[in-house]
Order: sequence, then C-alpha cells, then structure tokens
Amino acid sequence: MTIITVVGAGVMGSALTFPASDNGHEVRLVGTHLDEEIIRSCQANRFHPRLRRPIPEDVKPYFHTQVGEALQGAEVVVIGVNSRGVHWAAEAIGPHLQPGQILLMVTKGLESTPEGTLVVLPDVLHDRLPAAIRDQVHYAAIGGPSIAGELAARHPTAVVFVSRKAEILPRLQALFATPYYHIWTSTDMIGVEVCVALKNPFALAVGLAAGLVEARDPDIANAKMHNYAAAIFAQGLAETAYVVQLMGGQLETVYSLPGAGDLYVTTQGGRNSRMGRLLGLGKPYSDAVEEMPGETIEGVDAVIAIMPAIQHMVSTGKIAPDALPLLRELHRILTRNAPIEIDFDTFFSKLPFSPPLPVRKG
Amino acid sequence: MTIITVVGAGVMGSALTFPASDNGHEVRLVGTHLDEEIIRSCQANRFHPRLRRPIPEDVKPYFHTQVGEALQGAEVVVIGVNSRGVHWAAEAIGPHLQPGQILLMVTKGLESTPEGTLVVLPDVLHDRLPAAIRDQVHYAAIGGPSIAGELAARHPTAVVFVSRKAEILPRLQALFATPYYHIWTSTDMIGVEVCVALKNPFALAVGLAAGLVEARDPDIANAKMHNYAAAIFAQGLAETAYVVQLMGGQLETVYSLPGAGDLYVTTQGGRNSRMGRLLGLGKPYSDAVEEMPGETIEGVDAVIAIMPAIQHMVSTGKIAPDALPLLRELHRILTRNAPIEIDFDTFFSKLPFSPPLPVRKG
Repeated sequence: MTIITVVGAGVMGSALTFPASDNGHEVRLVGTHLDEEIIRSCQANRFHPRLRRPIPEDVKPYFHTQVGEALQGAEVVVIGVNSRGVHWAAEAIGPHLQPGQILLMVTKGLESTPEGTLVVLPDVLHDRLPAAIRDQVHYAAIGGPSIAGELAARHPTAVVFVSRKAEILPRLQALFATPYYHIWTSTDMIGVEVCVALKNPFALAVGLAAGLVEARDPDIANAKMHNYAAAIFAQGLAETAYVVQLMGGQLETVYSLPGAGDLYVTTQGGRNSRMGRLLGLGKPYSDAVEEMPGETIEGVDAVIAIMPAIQHMVSTGKIAPDALPLLRELHRILTRNAPIEIDFDTFFSKLPFSPPLPVRKG
Repeated sequence: MTIITVVGAGVMGSALTFPASDNGHEVRLVGTHLDEEIIRSCQANRFHPRLRRPIPEDVKPYFHTQVGEALQGAEVVVIGVNSRGVHWAAEAIGPHLQPGQILLMVTKGLESTPEGTLVVLPDVLHDRLPAAIRDQVHYAAIGGPSIAGELAARHPTAVVFVSRKAEILPRLQALFATPYYHIWTSTDMIGVEVCVALKNPFALAVGLAAGLVEARDPDIANAKMHNYAAAIFAQGLAETAYVVQLMGGQLETVYSLPGAGDLYVTTQGGRNSRMGRLLGLGKPYSDAVEEMPGETIEGVDAVIAIMPAIQHMVSTGKIAPDALPLLRELHRILTRNAPIEIDFDTFFSKLPFSPPLPVRKG
C-alpha cells in the first residue's frame, strides 16, 4: 500500500486526493492552521466545504498538529499550501521528513532573493528544509490547466509533472494518472514553475477588460473588449517566454499546457480575474482588495514577490529597461494605487516585429 | 488624398473603414454579390446591418458591379471577402488592378494544392490574378485578435500587419494606425497566415467543452470543463507551432498576437465556438450545420481545405503519422459525422514531454 500525504487542505491539494484515492492508495489530507474548519467538516461528515462535495471515502483527514503522524511512511508528500504558506510548510514538515520521500508541489509562485535573483518555489522549499534532510528528498511540481473543482468532479484534466530528477517521474505519473487525469512529464523545472507563477498576474491583467467595458456607457452594438483582453493575453505569454528563456527554461513549455493552457484556464474565472475586473471598473487597488476580504490573490502576491528581482536585473543590465512592460504596469497599479494605463505600444518589443509608430500617439 | 478601397462589406472589411476614415483617407467600401443588402442600407441611411452601427460619414459604398470604378486610384485594396471568396475576389479585381497597388488581406485560410502542399491565401490570390499584373502589385495581410465589432466601436485593438516586402510596411502602418488601432509589422508571412487560419478550427475545438458540460447532468458543485477546453487550447497552439515551423515560419509569431492572442479572442464567442458547442452537445455535424443555416463556419472550411495536404505530407513521410492529432480528430468529426472522442493522450507528442502512460488506459 502506497501512502500519499497531502499537506494543505485547500481546493487544489484536496482535489489531488481524488485521483490518488481512485488509484487505491492510502491518502492522508493534512489541514494547515488555516484549514481547521475544513478538516473538522471532513472528519464529521466527509464534506469538503470549499470543494462543495464529499472527499473520497478512504481519505484520512488530519489536523496540522498531527503532521508528523501523517507523514510517517508516505512515499509522496504533496505540498498544497498557498504561495504564502511555503515557509510555514517547510517548518512544519521538515522535522518529520524521511530520506527518499518525494515532495510534489502544487503551490504556485516565485521569490526574489536578497541578491536579486528569481527562485522557483521547489528551490525555496529546499533551502528552507533542515540541512540534514534537504538533499535526501526529491522535488517535483505540477503545472498546467487544472481548476481544482473540475479535477475533484473527475472531469478531464491534462497536466505536466516536472522534476529535475527524470528517474522519479514515471513513478509519480503511475501513482496519480487516471482515465480523467492525464499526466505528461518534463524535466524543465524552470519553464514549468515560471509559467505557473506568471499565469496568475497575467490572468488578472486579462480580467481588466471585463471591468473596463462594464464601466463604460453601453456601446450601440454591445461591443465588448475582447480584443483588449487578447492583446494582454498575448503579451502575458510573450513576457512569460522572455522570463523562461532568461532563466534557462524551454520555450515549448510556454506554448503548451503549462504556459498557454494554464493562462487560458485562469482567465476563465477565479480570484485573479475578479480582482482584474474590480481594477478595470476603476477602483484603486486599496479599495478593490477590501471587496475581497480574506482572499489570497496569488497574482498580486506574485507581482510583489517578483518585482525586486526584475528591478535588480534591470539595474545590472541583465534585462533591458523596456522588458516586461505589462508586469511593471501591474506592479504600478497594485503597489501605488495607480489608475490603469496600459500602453499597448510598449508590447512585443522583444519579438521580431516592428513596433507601432510613435507618430500616431495621442 | 490617399484612396483605400475595401472589397467585401462583411464585418471585418467594413470595420477597417473606421481607422482608415479616421485618418482622413478617402475610403470606398465595395460589397460582393452577397453584400447587396448591406450596400443598399449603407447608401440609404449609412447603417451597416451586420456591424449594427452607422459607417463613418465619408465612407463611399459601392456595389460589386462598380468595382472597377472603386479601385481606380486606390493605393491600398483591402481584401475583406470570406475564405470562400478569394477566387471570386481575384477574378473581380484582377482586370482593374494598377501596378504598385497594395493588396491587404484580412481573409483567413489555407489551401492545399493538388501537389499536396499548403499555400497561404496571399499566395493563392497571387496565383489567381492575371499574369500581367500579379507581380506588379504588393501583398500584405493582417493577423491578430480583432473582433470586427470592437474595432468598429473604436475599442483598443492590437494586430500585426505582415508582408514579405518590408519596405511597404511602414506606409501601411501609417495609413491605418490610430490611437485605438495598434499595429506591429512583421515579414513572417507564413507564421502569421498559418496562425490566422488555424485559430478557427482550434477555437471550434475549444468550444466543444461548453457543449459537453451542458449535455451532462449538473455536477453537485457545478464544475465546468474549462480544464478540458484549456488542454485543447494548448494542443491547438502546439499544433499551430508545429505547422508554422514545418512551413518555415517563426515561433515568436505563435506565442504572441497572431497565434495565442487570436486563438484566445476567437474562443470568446462567434460562429466557430457556437459550432463547437453544438458538436459538444452530441449533435452529428450534419445536424449541427442545419442549426446555423447560411453561416460560413471558417473553422470547418479550414480543416477541409488543409487536410489533403496534411495527408499527403504524412504519406510522403514529411510529417509523422502521429502529428496533428487534434486537427485530424476535427476532420473525422466534421467529415464523417463522428462522435467526439478526444484522446488527450495523443497530445503534445512533438514536445519535450514524456507522454501519459499506456498502462492506465480504459
């Protein structure tokens, strides 16, 4: 009997218990200190209040105080905390890890180091684990379009499992793959992790269009602003490609599931889109955030986490000052309460296109 | 005074009269034999019934019988017919073209030659024009996310103008660029034209998910099938990249405006999406097409036009038999009334991912 322990009982970690359980493994779901209600509900009547459905019959719910017990004997430890919880997760699981365990991250994000470089979350986790164990375990992550509620409904879902250690991937794939959960594998850790981190801010930016059109007087022919949204979608993907290549990842990761697929699905709803709409309606960020109390907007966190490294790379000449205009505009909007002024003409400057003419400005 | 003549008074050709007219040019709009109602309406009260708004005051409407007069002295001739109209357009304008005129195509599509190669529409047009003039005019095209009704509403729109003749691009850009119509230029004719042609069938395929979820019993937590749609979106973009590279185009075109941006916008509504939904509901193609009488579904036409060349390239070993599984599945659905059986596990086989395990099938 293979044991799979999921740490973090939010929607994504909990959704992964479905394919794992369907494959007959012993599955343990550990709530963080933020998930006590969820675990209580799962223990009482097996109902997951955020997924709004029962968890699989044989999934065992644990409180965070029981994390040591829950990790005992696990072959795979899924890290399902949100991007703010990685440091907590490292502290919580560190003392209980056993050599050979696989840490499979679904948490999305990037961090800037004090030295001004960007680090993917599996590497952040590695650096935060106790020195004695950090090189005795394996690191993997999941990228690709995967709305948790759909995976839990056993609707078709296609993802990429990534690890720098190719030899662990077939095993992980075999543990989780089901007829509805389609898993490709890749060793492009940088590409996948940059894609999953950047899709949140760029989906937020795509969402601006919905608010902008709502805030206008209705058009005579009811025209929307999908062209505006699509230009941002394209620039978001182009900026993702730029960062992936800068960090040594593969371009193929960008124009397939982890990049384009995940950005697409993230624009189809969720918290990042809702924040984008509020900003598009003309609300300053400080007001918009009050309309979404208690919600973690990962796109906002990602921009704030990434920007110090970007600014450092600009200042040291590693990237051009005109690179990443959309990411920098998002940073301005989210940290300075700035009104939205997307300057499309700054887009696509790293591609083999000639830019718009300055002559027609204004 | 620069004269710009648009041939084809459908929504896209007509929408281009807005930036052209805003820039102070003399703009002439010529209906095809299918557009007589539109031209009559424009002449009578300036109202464009398909754009559902008035055309700009100084745009001059012409019937197709007046095409010679309308082309006289034009610097640019916009070809705004649909993909079935290119041969007609070549015959209609051929006798009236003057050396040095620029033909700017907004028509989207690809054709297979009898020899089994794929040809982009500007080259089809070239080959159909009278020999005496075909090399005396210039060819250009527009790619990128551009819903016509939004351009006509003067909502922000970002596109790429493409020509193999780089020297004509700054002039075209200057003629059409406005504060709401953002134009990049590119010489990657193959990349742009393959992207604009393939986005229609792939948007149709993305639309299947909407029908599939409607056809099911409602899920307990109202789960949709965006993961399914996103996997198809990603595979569509990956297949676009495959064809672009096969034909010698540039990858950057795929992960920016002409590829990802235009595919995104096309999934947000329109005829291809509606056809996808009908097929997803379980209707055979022959029934679905009866629910959309008189409508040209460009995604359907594109698949049927492209497939002979694909099959020829497979048979001659130019492409692998397992390449383009989504395009081939669409062909099966659209030409054999086949039920939808998307085999996700055939996807992404040309990328540096390891595929799903056969062990878990069924």
